[in-house]
Amino acid sequence: MRRLPQNPLVQPADVKPSRSDHRVLGAFNPGVAQLGHETLLLLRVSETPAGAEDEWLSSPIWDAERGELDVVRFRRDDPDVTEVEPRGFRHRGLLYLTSISHLRLARSYDGVDFTVANTPALFPSEATEAFGIEDCRITRLNETYWITYKAVSRDGICIGLATTRDFVTYERHGIAFEPHNLDVVMFPEQIGGDHVALTRPETWIAEAPAMWIARSPDLLHWGRHELLMKPRPGKWDSGRVGASAVPIPTGRGWLEIYHGATPEHEYCAGLLLLDREDPTKILARSEQPILRPTEPYETEGFFGGVIFASGATVRDGKVTLYYGASDDTTAAAEATVEELLSTLPAG
Amino acid sequence: MRRLPQNPLVQPADVKPSRSDHRVLGAFNPGVAQLGHETLLLLRVSETPAGAEDEWLSSPIWDAERGELDVVRFRRDDPDVTEVEPRGFRHRGLLYLTSISHLRLARSYDGVDFTVANTPALFPSEATEAFGIEDCRITRLNETYWITYKAVSRDGICIGLATTRDFVTYERHGIAFEPHNLDVVMFPEQIGGDHVALTRPETWIAEAPAMWIARSPDLLHWGRHELLMKPRPGKWDSGRVGASAVPIPTGRGWLEIYHGATPEHEYCAGLLLLDREDPTKILARSEQPILRPTEPYETEGFFGGVIFASGATVRDGKVTLYYGASDDTTAAAEATVEELLSTLPAG
Repeated sequence: MRRLPQNPLVQPADVKPSRSDHRVLGAFNPGVAQLGHETLLLLRVSETPAGAEDEWLSSPIWDAERGELDVVRFRRDDPDVTEVEPRGFRHRGLLYLTSISHLRLARSYDGVDFTVANTPALFPSEATEAFGIEDCRITRLNETYWITYKAVSRDGICIGLATTRDFVTYERHGIAFEPHNLDVVMFPEQIGGDHVALTRPETWIAEAPAMWIARSPDLLHWGRHELLMKPRPGKWDSGRVGASAVPIPTGRGWLEIYHGATPEHEYCAGLLLLDREDPTKILARSEQPILRPTEPYETEGFFGGVIFASGATVRDGKVTLYYGASDDTTAAAEATVEELLSTLPAG
Repeated sequence: MRRLPQNPLVQPADVKPSRSDHRVLGAFNPGVAQLGHETLLLLRVSETPAGAEDEWLSSPIWDAERGELDVVRFRRDDPDVTEVEPRGFRHRGLLYLTSISHLRLARSYDGVDFTVANTPALFPSEATEAFGIEDCRITRLNETYWITYKAVSRDGICIGLATTRDFVTYERHGIAFEPHNLDVVMFPEQIGGDHVALTRPETWIAEAPAMWIARSPDLLHWGRHELLMKPRPGKWDSGRVGASAVPIPTGRGWLEIYHGATPEHEYCAGLLLLDREDPTKILARSEQPILRPTEPYETEGFFGGVIFASGATVRDGKVTLYYGASDDTTAAAEATVEELLSTLPAG
C-alpha cells in the first residue's frame, strides 16, 4: 500500500483535551465511516492527568456510580507497584492504566485533512467502561451506523454497542459480547439471512488469540460461533490476529483487512479473502503483511512498532486504510481493491 | 441441606466405559431433568486410557477431522513435561488433559436409585470438543430440554448447545457462547419477553471470575450482557462463582443455587435470590454455604474438597440438589424451598 505523504494525519497536538486538567497522549485506532461526501473518523483519544510528576504514577478511572472521573496516584518507588510499562502497572496485584480513552469525531472532505471536534462523541459512562472506550469499528447497515467498541474495566474487556445516523447523537445498546472480547467487526450486509461479525475472544487455554465468526438475527444478540482463523507460527501474525476493517465485497469474495502481531508486539496489516456466501470459508490469506511499521511515526512513539488498522473507505475501487501508528497518531495508506486482491494467491 | 443416606448415588464403578480400552475415572457434575415421573441425570463421565503405566502420561484427544479418538503419550520424566496435576499437564507449553469426558444418561423413578445407560448420550464430535464435553445444565422450556455444556479444546472452553425432547435423540445447535465461558444456566421461563441466562465468562483482567447475565430472543443468540455478581474477598466464594441449578421461581424471587470456590479450590454451594421481574437485581446472597465438603466422598477422591452443584429437581416444594463430589462421584442433598429461603436475610 502507498502511505499518504501527509502522514500522520492526526496527532495528539491536534486534539483539545476533554478536561483542562488532562493532556492528550494519543489520537489513534479510528473507526471509519463515509457520510455523504465526508470521511468520518471516530478516533480513540487517550488522555492522562496533566502535570504528572516523574515520581508519581497516575491512573484516571471513570466512577460510574458517582458519575465522575477519579485520578488514583501511587509513588513510583512504592514497593507495592509492579509491572510498570507505558500503558499500565499493577498496585498490590490490581491492574491500573496510565490513560483513559474516549471516542472523538474527526471530519474531512478529502479523507486527508481532518477537523477534530472539541468534545467527545462517546465518553465512558458505565462501570464496564471504567478504564475507557477504545478502538471502535463502524459498519453501515441501511441508514444506521453500528459502532462496536472495546469497553475496558477491571471486570474485563468486552464489546459495547452504539448506533448513530448522523454522528451527532448516539444511542447505546449495552454489551454485545462478554469478556474477553475485542476487535469485533460487523459485515455490511446480511449473509444467508444472518448478520455476521468477526470477533476476537481470548482464553487462557489457547496458545495465541484467534479470530472467530458469529451470527445474529438483530445485531444485538450473537451466537452460532465458529473458530475462523488462528495465528500462524513463525509468520508475521504468529502472536495474535484480529479483524481490522469492515469486510469489502469483491468479485472474488469478502476482502478483509486484518491485523496480526508477533509475540514481540510488532503489529502489521494483512489480507484475508472469505467466501461471499459462506464467510467461514477462508479462500486466501496474506503470506506477507501489506503494511509493516517502517516509518518513524510507526516505529517510534508511545508504543512503537505498531500499525493497528481499524477501518477503511472504499471509493471508485480505491481503498484508503486508516490506522493507528505507535498507539499515538493516525495515518493512512492507499491501494485499489484490484491491487490488494492481486497480492493474494488464486482462491 | 440434608445429604441422602445413600450417597454417593453414582460412582465410576457403576458406569461401563464407552470403549473397552478405557476406564471410567468419574461420573459427576450431572445436568438434571424431570421427565414424567422420572429423574434424569446427564452425567459427566470422564475416561482415561486403561492400563496407563505409572511412567507414562496419557491424554485422550478427539480428532474431529478423522472422526476418532487419539491417545497421546509422554514419559513422566520427559524434561518437556511440566505442570503435572491430576487433571492435566503441559508438554512444550501445550496443555493436555489426562481424561476426556462425555455425557451419559442415568434414569431413576425415586431420584435415588439410578440406572446408567451403557452408551454415551453426547460424545465429542466437533473440533471445539477435542478435550471433551463437560458439566452440562438442562432447562426445560415447554416440551423441549435445552442442554448447555462446556465444549473444551485447546481453542478454549466455550458453551455448546443441544436440545432433546425425549433424552433418546439429541440435536446440536453449535456454540452459543464463545471462549472463555462456562456454567451457563438458562432460566425456565421468559422474563419481560426475553430468554435469560446466567453465564460465567473468564478474563485475565478480572481478579476473580464473576457471574454475568445475558438475554436472548431465541436461545441461540445472546446479548445485552451485564455483570451480575463478583466473588467476595475473604468469604467462602472469594475465588470464583458460577451458576449451578436452574433458577427456581418462588414468592420471594428467583432462587438460584450457585457454587463458589476459594482460591484454594474448595467448592461449596450457596444461594442467591434474584428479583422475579428483573433478575439483574440481587435481593439476597448466602453469607455461609448451604453445603460444604465434609463427608469422605466429598473431601477425598480424584480432586478432593469439591462439591460442584449442577442441577436440582423440585417436587411438592422439596428441592433435591445433585452435585459432583470430588470430581468423581454424584451425590445429592435435600431441603424444602421454604427451608432454603429461610437461610437468607429478608430481601
